[in-house]
Amino acid sequence: MPSDTDAKETAAPKKTVTAQKLESKQQEISVTEFFEKNKQILGFDSRSKSLLMGIKEAVDNSLDNCEEANILPEISVKIDRLNDEDYHVSIEDNGTGITHKAMPNVFGRLLYGSRFHALRQSRGQQGIGISATIMYGNITTGKPAHAQSKIEGEDEVAWQMDIFIDTKTNRPVVTNDKAFTWEGKQHGTLIEYTTKGRYITGKQSIFEYLKETAIVNPHAQITFYDPEGTKTVFERATDIMPPRPKEIKPHPEGMEIGDLFKYAGNTQQKTMKSFMKNDFSRITDRLASEIFEISKVNPDKKPDKLEREEAIAILDAIKKVKIMAPPTDCLSPIGDTLIKKGLMHVLDGLRPEYYATPITRSPKAVNGNPFVVEAGIVYGGDIPSDGQVQIYRFANRVPLLFKQGDCAITKAVSEMDWRRYGLEQRGGKGIPFGPAIILVHVASTKVPFTSEGKEAVASFPELQSEIGLALRLCARNLKSHLNKMERKNKTHAKFEIVQEILPDMAEKVSQHLNKPVPDLSRTITKIMNVVWVEPTVVKENKKLRTIKYTIYNYTSQPRTIRLHAQVPKEAVNLSLFSGDYFLDMNDEGKANWEVKDIAPSTSAVVSFELSGEMADTFDADDIFFSGLNPVMVMGAEMLPGDWGIKGLDIVQTAEDDLVEDDADEKEEVEDLDDE
Amino acid sequence: MPSDTDAKETAAPKKTVTAQKLESKQQEISVTEFFEKNKQILGFDSRSKSLLMGIKEAVDNSLDNCEEANILPEISVKIDRLNDEDYHVSIEDNGTGITHKAMPNVFGRLLYGSRFHALRQSRGQQGIGISATIMYGNITTGKPAHAQSKIEGEDEVAWQMDIFIDTKTNRPVVTNDKAFTWEGKQHGTLIEYTTKGRYITGKQSIFEYLKETAIVNPHAQITFYDPEGTKTVFERATDIMPPRPKEIKPHPEGMEIGDLFKYAGNTQQKTMKSFMKNDFSRITDRLASEIFEISKVNPDKKPDKLEREEAIAILDAIKKVKIMAPPTDCLSPIGDTLIKKGLMHVLDGLRPEYYATPITRSPKAVNGNPFVVEAGIVYGGDIPSDGQVQIYRFANRVPLLFKQGDCAITKAVSEMDWRRYGLEQRGGKGIPFGPAIILVHVASTKVPFTSEGKEAVASFPELQSEIGLALRLCARNLKSHLNKMERKNKTHAKFEIVQEILPDMAEKVSQHLNKPVPDLSRTITKIMNVVWVEPTVVKENKKLRTIKYTIYNYTSQPRTIRLHAQVPKEAVNLSLFSGDYFLDMNDEGKANWEVKDIAPSTSAVVSFELSGEMADTFDADDIFFSGLNPVMVMGAEMLPGDWGIKGLDIVQTAEDDLVEDDADEKEEVEDLDDE
Repeated sequence: MPSDTDAKETAAPKKTVTAQKLESKQQEISVTEFFEKNKQILGFDSRSKSLLMGIKEAVDNSLDNCEEANILPEISVKIDRLNDEDYHVSIEDNGTGITHKAMPNVFGRLLYGSRFHALRQSRGQQGIGISATIMYGNITTGKPAHAQSKIEGEDEVAWQMDIFIDTKTNRPVVTNDKAFTWEGKQHGTLIEYTTKGRYITGKQSIFEYLKETAIVNPHAQITFYDPEGTKTVFERATDIMPPRPKEIKPHPEGMEIGDLFKYAGNTQQKTMKSFMKNDFSRITDRLASEIFEISKVNPDKKPDKLEREEAIAILDAIKKVKIMAPPTDCLSPIGDTLIKKGLMHVLDGLRPEYYATPITRSPKAVNGNPFVVEAGIVYGGDIPSDGQVQIYRFANRVPLLFKQGDCAITKAVSEMDWRRYGLEQRGGKGIPFGPAIILVHVASTKVPFTSEGKEAVASFPELQSEIGLALRLCARNLKSHLNKMERKNKTHAKFEIVQEILPDMAEKVSQHLNKPVPDLSRTITKIMNVVWVEPTVVKENKKLRTIKYTIYNYTSQPRTIRLHAQVPKEAVNLSLFSGDYFLDMNDEGKANWEVKDIAPSTSAVVSFELSGEMADTFDADDIFFSGLNPVMVMGAEMLPGDWGIKGLDIVQTAEDDLVEDDADEKEEVEDLDDE
Repeated sequence: MPSDTDAKETAAPKKTVTAQKLESKQQEISVTEFFEKNKQILGFDSRSKSLLMGIKEAVDNSLDNCEEANILPEISVKIDRLNDEDYHVSIEDNGTGITHKAMPNVFGRLLYGSRFHALRQSRGQQGIGISATIMYGNITTGKPAHAQSKIEGEDEVAWQMDIFIDTKTNRPVVTNDKAFTWEGKQHGTLIEYTTKGRYITGKQSIFEYLKETAIVNPHAQITFYDPEGTKTVFERATDIMPPRPKEIKPHPEGMEIGDLFKYAGNTQQKTMKSFMKNDFSRITDRLASEIFEISKVNPDKKPDKLEREEAIAILDAIKKVKIMAPPTDCLSPIGDTLIKKGLMHVLDGLRPEYYATPITRSPKAVNGNPFVVEAGIVYGGDIPSDGQVQIYRFANRVPLLFKQGDCAITKAVSEMDWRRYGLEQRGGKGIPFGPAIILVHVASTKVPFTSEGKEAVASFPELQSEIGLALRLCARNLKSHLNKMERKNKTHAKFEIVQEILPDMAEKVSQHLNKPVPDLSRTITKIMNVVWVEPTVVKENKKLRTIKYTIYNYTSQPRTIRLHAQVPKEAVNLSLFSGDYFLDMNDEGKANWEVKDIAPSTSAVVSFELSGEMADTFDADDIFFSGLNPVMVMGAEMLPGDWGIKGLDIVQTAEDDLVEDDADEKEEVEDLDDE
């Protein structure tokens, strides 16, 4: 050991700092002190944002808890204004409740929680949120938070306590801890605190957060009392709980050597082989054998004796064998129908012209964490067309209202050339302009947030690229809608001319020649030479729609055509299956019809009903056809190659722009692989 | 106490989660585990960024240490590529060194350091950076870091050791700890580690980081060996150390009640009054008395007995009394001359048309932390004019290369209407387009970074507003330059017409009439009716410039004019004081000249030399005048009201756009006050 350097300090003659002086200043920083001094990192950077952050953390916890316990959430949020800057906030839920023993640490200790180590989609992942909220309340008002909770069970009593966080030690200080009878409460938790804040309305408000939360959590009922006392109930749109995300084991792909050592150090397994087989996702016995063969590591070795060189060899071997993608029942995407429903719910006032079919991508993994990306686009109607498009961002069903600028979602939007999809954009970069709203949801067992405030998603290349692909697929829908509308309008114009001017001319000429007016329908048919598909939607009542496709054959020969539509499964009723021309429908709601030999100058009607909550999510314009040359068909899109129906002879002449698109996508996916 | 809830767990029949099950899963999360799983928060989100972050943390520490100890920094950075993704990095400095005892914790423990609690501008503030770097190296390669250090003193030996961070306990694990003789080393530190990474060039590269670091740390010499072995030396531009920021006491303004309790709990003082007087900045005896009078709190009370209601009363009283702004010797702004020099240094290849005089605002405080904002704009020349302007962001003399989108600096740029200052911008919002580069430096005792990676500044309203004001002042310079250039070009055109066409006409007419050609100079003078100030710069050699202002009197009367210029103090030589017409110069380099009674149709010359490193930072176009009606003067701007010279009778007719601007600014400052 060295001589005692401290003793020399007095000997140093210089006035400047010396190593010894610096040493004497070195000290530990408690995590609470750190966040106390860096509140902005937790999202507490202005009074208005702070008020929102606290409520967000509490509501996120309630939703997580209810989902884990399969309880339909009933959450109540109440804000009272005490004076200028002081607010009293209370959030109550009907979750499992928290055991008396666990209460102090759950609320009064940072970096403490149940979801940090679990590989499963959840809102809270850090063990920071609610305790940070309570700390902020403590610091800004000097008042403890009040928590009460009751767990299920006839003979369980409810408990309440006041909690203060000691920022020096990061430990809860509990007072007034007592049992009580919570009238009418089966189980659940209430958290109340006083905090400095500022209540605002508008784009980044508590109301907006709750509204957007309701969009992506249609199973939750949220009641909100604002400081004016106004009560708003966000009713649940469905009684069906989202599938409960399952906890999975880590996936070996993208694992760092440090992770492998940590798992090997913690395992209960006795040999490396059983460790690989039992402690990871997707490692079969055969795969494990392969890994040890390639790596030349002894499969009977004890995991805690693993050497660095062996670990490197195993990681190299993992890269060489083919491992299945991680299981995805750990994730809970919203789904395309619910995304559309949610968007319609919130945008009804704007009467948009078009909702592009939302895209739910298939799951991928980044650093061993599965994730899935969903995207939707809404276009036209009264959406303002002179500004930048609005971006709705969600992560694990939580709306992200802040830090849009550095979110991977925004970056993916900005790096795409939207001019090719019908939106305006300077130089093909940046957030595009036009009457559109873009929604993106990222779900993962571990969303890589850019900070503890969980306000933006970090730009991991794999993730950002997936978002880009989802957006492009969605934008392609938009573009083909815009193309279709343009073509339709042109053909409509042609129709009008032909159907008005020709008979007019015929009549005039007949008068002149004193001959009877000839029947022009065959002539018109010949000039038009199209099969026209015309959708009609009749809104029978709030939850019942009749969808009709009239197919006019304006050609000189009998025509056979197949129609294809993806209908919301939840809205299908028997009328679909019993309708004329119906062929079949698959599990995803992809339905097919065939109309044979429509005679020239006649028409046929394919019709069905949709009923229930989701009936209005179907856009009748999203109709596809096959069996005819696409240059001949108006009003429907050619069935894309990836529709996945076998046995139908599809005319494979795709439109040029779609082919181009696909090429682009492939390139980009390959680019990504190079990374 | 409640009954043992754990015992009931087996009784719960449901398959879903119960409160008891959740309790059993609750656990503490170590800060190291947290960051291990959230590497992106520390800035380690891609391999290329990770390689940069590590070097940044080490270099920042070296610069801080040298500044504290008043040592001219000599830093060497060396990167070797071991294979595909593995790099060996070593950073060596000539700082104070670290005592043997302190080495393990400095490098091997997160949230540990000397600068976290100090109220003084420094680069490292969190006690996270270098240990996070070492942790990332550990995790990704399984190899310990290697540190060696020697502190000053003849009989001191150097020490070296290998350091590994135990992520479960957040403690260093030291091996190979031994003394050695470090040949030729007086004092300093070397840190070496192996890490996964990717070496890139371009905008967000290590080279760019070091280059920009050199710009704002002109006293540092940095030597860089890239993985190809290429050596680059960023030579120091000056031997003068920046003034060493002093540590200050907390300023009471904006303090939360929690802060007050913490300070009161930790104080050595025996009474509240002595506590207020001695533990805070800017609290005089009189002010302290006032505070206790208003708050009605007993000044003799023991600080640790302070009650919540009393604390609230004291905080209210603090808002009511007038406390001086915090002292600013805790800050170390770069200064306008050095900013300009730095910009010129890096932009010489682009031959910009104009460097707007950089603005260093006077210090303000946010949450009791003093801060100062500096801004500069460069315009024209070969700066690309078709893209968005480039923004150089700095915080406490550290370049910020990432997360531009959510930085308060970017937001301040985006929220300003640049169309009024001559740049293109859609709808008056967003990053403007045009041939310009914007630089902003924020210096503070506590820069509010948005995350531990220290990549962007949080948008505290007070801070963002100050950045906006600095930018507007700078942009005003730009605008008046553009205006001046436009007017100059127009007048030049007029001059050409008058001086070419009039003599031509006179000659023709004279020929015609057979009369001698008349002298037109008086006529021309009458038509022009301006006093013309024409700057000329002669570059005598690399470090010597001769500046000349020729003042032509194109009016019909003798004219007296005063010229004013802010010259870089560092570049002034005796020629200035001995020159004709020189009046005086103040400490800031604001120099004044007076030329009396220039006869009509004659001219006078004001001339001086500038020498040294900073000579080229003077823009001869930045010349002001007073004593004449501004409509009559071309080539110089009217002296602004805030120039701060007394005794000169300035014609106070300002340009309209300037007046408008000022009104705007005042409004915005008032808006801010409302927040």
